[in-house]
Amino acid sequence: MSEFSLIRRYFTRATPGAVLGVGDDAALLQVSAGHVLAISTDMLVSGTHFFPDADPFLLGHKTLAVNLSDLAAMGAKPRWATLAISLPQVDDVWLERFAAGFFALAEQQGVDLVGGDTTRGPLNLCVTIMGEVPPALALRRDGAKLGDDIWVSGSLGDAALALAHLQERVVLDEAAFAACATRLHQPQPRVELGLVLRGLAHSAIDISDGLLADLGHILEASKVGAELRFDALPVSEIMSQFKDAAMVQRCILAGGDDYELCFTAPESCREALSQLAATLTLPLTRIGKVTSNAGCVVRDVQGNNMTMEAGGYDHFA
Amino acid sequence: MSEFSLIRRYFTRATPGAVLGVGDDAALLQVSAGHVLAISTDMLVSGTHFFPDADPFLLGHKTLAVNLSDLAAMGAKPRWATLAISLPQVDDVWLERFAAGFFALAEQQGVDLVGGDTTRGPLNLCVTIMGEVPPALALRRDGAKLGDDIWVSGSLGDAALALAHLQERVVLDEAAFAACATRLHQPQPRVELGLVLRGLAHSAIDISDGLLADLGHILEASKVGAELRFDALPVSEIMSQFKDAAMVQRCILAGGDDYELCFTAPESCREALSQLAATLTLPLTRIGKVTSNAGCVVRDVQGNNMTMEAGGYDHFA
Repeated sequence: MSEFSLIRRYFTRATPGAVLGVGDDAALLQVSAGHVLAISTDMLVSGTHFFPDADPFLLGHKTLAVNLSDLAAMGAKPRWATLAISLPQVDDVWLERFAAGFFALAEQQGVDLVGGDTTRGPLNLCVTIMGEVPPALALRRDGAKLGDDIWVSGSLGDAALALAHLQERVVLDEAAFAACATRLHQPQPRVELGLVLRGLAHSAIDISDGLLADLGHILEASKVGAELRFDALPVSEIMSQFKDAAMVQRCILAGGDDYELCFTAPESCREALSQLAATLTLPLTRIGKVTSNAGCVVRDVQGNNMTMEAGGYDHFA
Repeated sequence: MSEFSLIRRYFTRATPGAVLGVGDDAALLQVSAGHVLAISTDMLVSGTHFFPDADPFLLGHKTLAVNLSDLAAMGAKPRWATLAISLPQVDDVWLERFAAGFFALAEQQGVDLVGGDTTRGPLNLCVTIMGEVPPALALRRDGAKLGDDIWVSGSLGDAALALAHLQERVVLDEAAFAACATRLHQPQPRVELGLVLRGLAHSAIDISDGLLADLGHILEASKVGAELRFDALPVSEIMSQFKDAAMVQRCILAGGDDYELCFTAPESCREALSQLAATLTLPLTRIGKVTSNAGCVVRDVQGNNMTMEAGGYDHFA
């Protein structure tokens, strides 16, 4: 099985959204009139981002999902992707399952795989995702305004709780672990939400490194601060019943991998956002306000400033 | 040193050609009117594509050069790139040198680094390169016509000869090795040539896997054959004086890494191409003809069909 046959066999599908897809020196893509190209790249490494024995179907899903999440956070419509894989050896079963997971999500999201590279080496997956957005409507990190509400989608911390279970730092019962593991292994990028937030949100980011770390990027870029209410943070039934308060706090505030969106919007959008939540059947929760302070304050139910551990997940921390 | 500081310190430069560069969830890029985006991705793995102790400055150059070569082969003007790096540990000296090599070529070619990812893992470099080209002028693999001349730029095989020396399969004297090693470690992507071939060449590819393998992709995509004259193939002084005929043949026909362009053009373009060669001070050599046969025949100086070893370099062969 040669490199060329590998690419052909597993990663060549129809690319109706491309002028020219896989199989030349470069793919050719037509960006829609009035739009700019939104592009982001993410590398997933065995042993750093996933366990070496990870289910390849789920890994195919997640490799694309984490990239789609970046486009969602820009309010961009996903269109195309490239995929580079380094593999220790040719493993047909693994490749077939990985491709199945990748393409299941790609087809659901209307993404064409337009290029790639396959080579020998330690397992490493690198996706570059491309979408399009009218430039004035892009959801940037630097647009948060004093007085904006801060919102998050879905619920926070379950992926981190599943990881803690896998690392034997907590013990979950089977049903609880199964629910949390789905959040960890099959994150659902909030692409639809990103699209409808165009024109409503002032700023947005996806939560890949933990709420405080990622919201921190918005605050830094927008030169504002934030005040959050810990009891307002949306959590699952499992998280709300979990007894270890320190672990709960860590998962909610600093756990990565949930791939929810955190965004800011003016108070005038509250009604519109509530209606959107209903339409998308996706909870949208107000968790605090943009302030003129430096940094982010989290208040407990009594209004006291909670002491936090620093930051989110950082690959070189 | 955190991931965020790493990206900021070494890989954040001005991006005058981008609507929005490094530092948000995605970069935003405006493709010029009348143009399509040309995009390609390449992954370089330590131990597969380069020696673990490779000079990081040269590696920075080569990582971008091999990607630029893909755009050159499409006749696309380079504009933007993203870079994902997996590193076993933070090594400031290595990162600084790598970035210096990468940006020296990027600035020379007018390429903005608009996004990236830095993570922990075995050394792996993944670049996605983007450029633009009017779609009707793109140099595709499937455009070769019966009767076209087949051309190559520069000279063939020196990079493979340098690699053979490093692998102790041949012995070169110091000066000869130095000359060939420059071809291996600092390939010069033929970007200018690709741009001027718009409207002249019927098809093009860059030679990364060896002349026969890469020309084979043109022939397959264009559903034609080829006849080459071995003595017409352009080689350096060093190669022409090298004694091991089997090694010479292997380097010229199946050696990768020269990153020259192979292209086909109608006979009516001969004069224009000769003038271009003079203007660019880059040799352009006619090496054969497109035929209606299946596959590629190489004839020796007596006109006999030479027996070849198969193919080029294939990462899973």
